[in-house]
Amino acid sequence: MSREIAFTIAARDGAARTGSLTLPRGTIRTPAFMPVGTAGTVKAMYMDQVRALGADVILGNTYHLMLRPGAERIARLGGLHAFSGWNGPILTDSGGFQVMSLATLRTVDDSGVTFRSHIDGTEHRMSPEDSLAIQAALDSDIRMQLDECVALPADRGTIETAMRRSLAWAERSKAAFGAPAGRALFGIVQGGDQPDLRVASAEALAGIGFDGYAVGGLAVGEPQAVMLDMLAVTVPALPDDAPHYLMGVGEPDDILKAVARGIDMFDCVLPTRAGRHGVAYTRFGKLNLKNARHADDPRPLDATADWAPARDYSRAYLHHLVKAGEPLAGMFLSWNNLAYYQHLMAGIRDAIAGGCLADLSAACEQGWADGDLPVWTG
Amino acid sequence: MSREIAFTIAARDGAARTGSLTLPRGTIRTPAFMPVGTAGTVKAMYMDQVRALGADVILGNTYHLMLRPGAERIARLGGLHAFSGWNGPILTDSGGFQVMSLATLRTVDDSGVTFRSHIDGTEHRMSPEDSLAIQAALDSDIRMQLDECVALPADRGTIETAMRRSLAWAERSKAAFGAPAGRALFGIVQGGDQPDLRVASAEALAGIGFDGYAVGGLAVGEPQAVMLDMLAVTVPALPDDAPHYLMGVGEPDDILKAVARGIDMFDCVLPTRAGRHGVAYTRFGKLNLKNARHADDPRPLDATADWAPARDYSRAYLHHLVKAGEPLAGMFLSWNNLAYYQHLMAGIRDAIAGGCLADLSAACEQGWADGDLPVWTG
Repeated sequence: MSREIAFTIAARDGAARTGSLTLPRGTIRTPAFMPVGTAGTVKAMYMDQVRALGADVILGNTYHLMLRPGAERIARLGGLHAFSGWNGPILTDSGGFQVMSLATLRTVDDSGVTFRSHIDGTEHRMSPEDSLAIQAALDSDIRMQLDECVALPADRGTIETAMRRSLAWAERSKAAFGAPAGRALFGIVQGGDQPDLRVASAEALAGIGFDGYAVGGLAVGEPQAVMLDMLAVTVPALPDDAPHYLMGVGEPDDILKAVARGIDMFDCVLPTRAGRHGVAYTRFGKLNLKNARHADDPRPLDATADWAPARDYSRAYLHHLVKAGEPLAGMFLSWNNLAYYQHLMAGIRDAIAGGCLADLSAACEQGWADGDLPVWTG
Repeated sequence: MSREIAFTIAARDGAARTGSLTLPRGTIRTPAFMPVGTAGTVKAMYMDQVRALGADVILGNTYHLMLRPGAERIARLGGLHAFSGWNGPILTDSGGFQVMSLATLRTVDDSGVTFRSHIDGTEHRMSPEDSLAIQAALDSDIRMQLDECVALPADRGTIETAMRRSLAWAERSKAAFGAPAGRALFGIVQGGDQPDLRVASAEALAGIGFDGYAVGGLAVGEPQAVMLDMLAVTVPALPDDAPHYLMGVGEPDDILKAVARGIDMFDCVLPTRAGRHGVAYTRFGKLNLKNARHADDPRPLDATADWAPARDYSRAYLHHLVKAGEPLAGMFLSWNNLAYYQHLMAGIRDAIAGGCLADLSAACEQGWADGDLPVWTG
């Protein structure tokens, strides 16, 4: 890479790598987890908390931002960084995935997608070039090509058509991107659960040449084993010296296993969404604070954690906040969950550097398998 | 006072006083605004933020806490301070006001109140002694007698009956309180909009003797002028050397005018409730961030404020957060509003010390009357 962008691999452990992706607005330590800042805010969090927990980069959703408050408005207000108060790197998706999952009356053809806003029903048209123009208006640091993502299971014909279309859009996206200094463009591998299509997609994208390569169309309904199989065949077909980004993934267990298969970047709404629904990620696994077992429990979520919501408050208090529907419930549990994820990523980076990723994975899996503390009996 | 409780008046400006109320868990600078921590949390705020904004004391609602999570549970968990993470003084109300405003099927007789929970419909009975026992279980620092609060307008007979009943409950509350070391009990003046009943109530309470005196039954539907008239006759009838607390008040303008009539303590849900509904308190008055006039406005709420939500973000961003229903909207605006209130209280204390409360009031009123910045035109 060039244009003020540098990806460096500092250490490897099997197929796993640790290093950094440097952009003018900041350096992203990899493997990295990107909190999702859907609409210019990571839900129920202050940006300075997100940063302090160890996030080097956040994700912004082009679909949400183009509909509300509008990309041109954000551009007039100085771009997404000035607007939201996040000064580090921002990755924006293309908008395509949300069009497929949220918008109504959507149609896809080779020229792009047509859809109606889930907010107000207005009709919108987005081509690969439109998506890049919107992302340029937002002035994100890492931009994604528009792709067509197919939910699994799907028949091979549907998967192949979407993959070929995504490749054609990759070429158009690269031309539209224009390679501005300090801004990166990632291509997206498609191909569903078909190994040969995945490899063909990866090799074709490598031929076009991108600053990074995302694996899309996974965690869309298939078993984890299928996702991991696809990574095992896809990642080796990607340029080794560029970052590999697994889109929309996932659970901590998914992340550990994907890192072991050469993935460098992740994003997922799970930690914040689960946090708003009363669920805490911990080294004991996922805990549902709504459960009555916590109502009288004076113990913290995890006495060994070094973040306040897990260390300084009783499970009984967290249970109460969740049951009472208090805003602080979502604030505390989103904080806890992002802290847990970033703590996991820091551990992963250290483990790769130390050549002991398998040991970390085994320890994490054992902790989750052992499950929660015994029920409090006073 | 005694029992590790001290109220000191450091300066006066007309009927206004500034000083401090010292309790074992901390010193409350007066005049003080107490953020409302209804159910063991000041809504959408972290307790350390509430403290950092200048709050020395928060209020807990006995009615909410007795129903959920339950006073005995909080007692087992070490009391409301340990439960909620607020280590400074906490004032608890008696529960009576919420019984009247939230509970269903309520009946009042001389022995107490019977009501059904607004959460699950369960029947509860609360006598003056029960209220004090619940507040003792919560281990609050300042406890309030059970009283009967009448919404205005009301006929004199109803007002007098409630006032006499409240006085009888005041005596029983004092006996039930037991004067534990370091814990204060406040009596509550009733009497509606009837000056002679207000004076009779105040004098009778003074005869019983309390650590502080609250004025209740105001801001319950009457014009501000009536409230101020009642303060003008009531406060002089209260012991001068004890704190005077105006319950449930109010707007910044109410606070300025009540301080000028000798009130030392306030609580109100307005700053946090308004914050969750898109309304910001500012030196320009109350601004509704939902209003489209803010959608493209790059200016902060108030560039002269020293708190982040008012200083570091555009009105356009705050408008976007409110319109999108983002949790951060309530977080930022509650923060802004509590900061504004505490800034006002600090200014009031300084002004009284400097003998210029009237000047501060005039400046605030002028700012609110001048209104917001002109519409942004780019």
